[in-house]
Amino acid sequence: MTRPDNQFVRAEVSELARFIGCALERAGLPAADAATVGGLMAEADLQGSDGHGVIRLPQYVKRIRAGGINVRPDIRVATEQAAMAVLDGDNGMGHLVVTRAVELAVEKARACGIGWVSVRASNHAGPASLYVRKVMQHDMVGLYFAVGNANHLPPWGGLEMLLSTNPIAVAVPAGTEPPIVLDMATTVAAYGKVKALAKRGETMPEGWMMDREGRPLLDPARAAEGFLLPIGGYKGYGLALVAGLLAGTLGGGAMGRDVVDFNQNHVTPTNTGQAILALDLKAFRDPDVFKADVDRLIRDIRNSERLPGVEHIRLPGEQSHAKRKLYSETGIPIAAALARDLDDLASDLGIEPLQLMSPVHP
Amino acid sequence: MTRPDNQFVRAEVSELARFIGCALERAGLPAADAATVGGLMAEADLQGSDGHGVIRLPQYVKRIRAGGINVRPDIRVATEQAAMAVLDGDNGMGHLVVTRAVELAVEKARACGIGWVSVRASNHAGPASLYVRKVMQHDMVGLYFAVGNANHLPPWGGLEMLLSTNPIAVAVPAGTEPPIVLDMATTVAAYGKVKALAKRGETMPEGWMMDREGRPLLDPARAAEGFLLPIGGYKGYGLALVAGLLAGTLGGGAMGRDVVDFNQNHVTPTNTGQAILALDLKAFRDPDVFKADVDRLIRDIRNSERLPGVEHIRLPGEQSHAKRKLYSETGIPIAAALARDLDDLASDLGIEPLQLMSPVHP
Repeated sequence: MTRPDNQFVRAEVSELARFIGCALERAGLPAADAATVGGLMAEADLQGSDGHGVIRLPQYVKRIRAGGINVRPDIRVATEQAAMAVLDGDNGMGHLVVTRAVELAVEKARACGIGWVSVRASNHAGPASLYVRKVMQHDMVGLYFAVGNANHLPPWGGLEMLLSTNPIAVAVPAGTEPPIVLDMATTVAAYGKVKALAKRGETMPEGWMMDREGRPLLDPARAAEGFLLPIGGYKGYGLALVAGLLAGTLGGGAMGRDVVDFNQNHVTPTNTGQAILALDLKAFRDPDVFKADVDRLIRDIRNSERLPGVEHIRLPGEQSHAKRKLYSETGIPIAAALARDLDDLASDLGIEPLQLMSPVHP
Repeated sequence: MTRPDNQFVRAEVSELARFIGCALERAGLPAADAATVGGLMAEADLQGSDGHGVIRLPQYVKRIRAGGINVRPDIRVATEQAAMAVLDGDNGMGHLVVTRAVELAVEKARACGIGWVSVRASNHAGPASLYVRKVMQHDMVGLYFAVGNANHLPPWGGLEMLLSTNPIAVAVPAGTEPPIVLDMATTVAAYGKVKALAKRGETMPEGWMMDREGRPLLDPARAAEGFLLPIGGYKGYGLALVAGLLAGTLGGGAMGRDVVDFNQNHVTPTNTGQAILALDLKAFRDPDVFKADVDRLIRDIRNSERLPGVEHIRLPGEQSHAKRKLYSETGIPIAAALARDLDDLASDLGIEPLQLMSPVHP
């Protein structure tokens, strides 16, 4: 089967979820679990988190086939108190483990006002914002910390990549305005973005990465020769470190030299650590009054005076929100090169290929 | 009385605490409260947080005298659940309100594994690290968010200073190594550091502040003409925003346009919001095993390969820790100009001046 050579093709979100689910089921996941992961991965692409969506599918399948993922995990509470728990993911897919962590954190927050769930023996779970958004749907504020699945960041002044991009995400419900959803790597760029650029054959802006001599690294295909740079120099290094301690070390997940590079090693359990915090609005204030305050703040910011040349002042999550709306209508853009990889994967797995929206060239 | 003209004089930490306590008591605080605040402010100077120590005393006294602080506050729980509370500070000194919040968060964490206390109707409380350190002393991890007491940060792309430097602090206990204590403004520089440079007559590095035309601002005496820059551009803006929502809006504290500039206005209650989170180590893992993991991580980082020209790789809090040790022995350095201001204040209040360690020039 041929694919068009134009830069992007498009797929409907439901079709993308179906395709990913089928691939994961064929790789060995139970149908319900495969559908859950497929839905979350397609949702990542839907909101423009293209470094964390279907682009990861070939790697996930490779890992599952290599025995690096437990496809029938016993995800269980290792220890808990009224307002917290440590969840052992039993080396299951991260999407499943963190989804369970979110449910538990929300339950605990309902009972105690707040709930924290640390996760260990988990795996890569895609974009942090997916999970804080799920907390938010219960009229709660969500915070999330994770240890990344490969170390790309040296300590400030160092050369050894002892830290990952360890993301931090926060979701805050609004009223009539779109919610505020911050999802940021503690590096200037997330490694997923580097991969996405490499896939598209584009170059990186200066400031994303450096080589071992401290020179700017611009070619994403040479990413393995350098390291990511933290935001704000030593401050971003400090944020990556404490995010990793909160997400990893606190619950018994891997951190520092114990982090397994899941790009190179498809077999060793990663012991990935993640942590989620849910704060139940109604325990603090009348949720409607809170949301009205957030709406007012959003409007004050959006309508405030701009620097010369700036057209819009944006709120965190605004672009993802807009993409969710746009791609729901137009379909999700997928790089043609990635679409070809997915065709190869489909043929390899013996499943129906991804159905695209736009017609194939004659 | 004359003071030496050399750049710095020195005072013992206990003497500095005594002096600040006396000044605050004379200004109207009950003796015990004045001593508590004096101790915390001197501790700020002891660890090198010189933008938040005795340098703030003249301003605090001015505010108390103007009636902008409630010297006999009824600090009370406004609402609570098992693992959280909202504390109403009744416009008392921030140091007292946040100290009470720390105690309550620790209590709740002992009972539920974690504890969150939001504070409203509080005031400026000095360096964030003081409070997460107090959580840490109970074998807990501490997190702290605060809304700064003057807006110096526009949203990314904007000119109106709708946000403050909203600090984030995290303290993580270690075993035999010094603990990890991150305390960072979400701007490249904290406003307190700008003030300290102004006091010392020094210039700012490029990248700290910009003027309204987007040009670098280097003279700290002209700080009112410009604004602070966030770390990592839009990421630091996002962090400042969510830290403010967590510390302010969630508990009913001021945020955005409601923030009172306590440098300009000494009368209006600031309704300052702060939030503290305590995570009890023993609810998660064996604290000794956790601390051994942290020690190992610290040593891996400290001893890792360095970039050419870098002499030490530091951990967050390492320099404050070193200053605590050094200044305990040598005394706390105080800019001569500030020492003169403190003499004026002492004479104005009719109290014993600050006793310095070094002899006055003949």
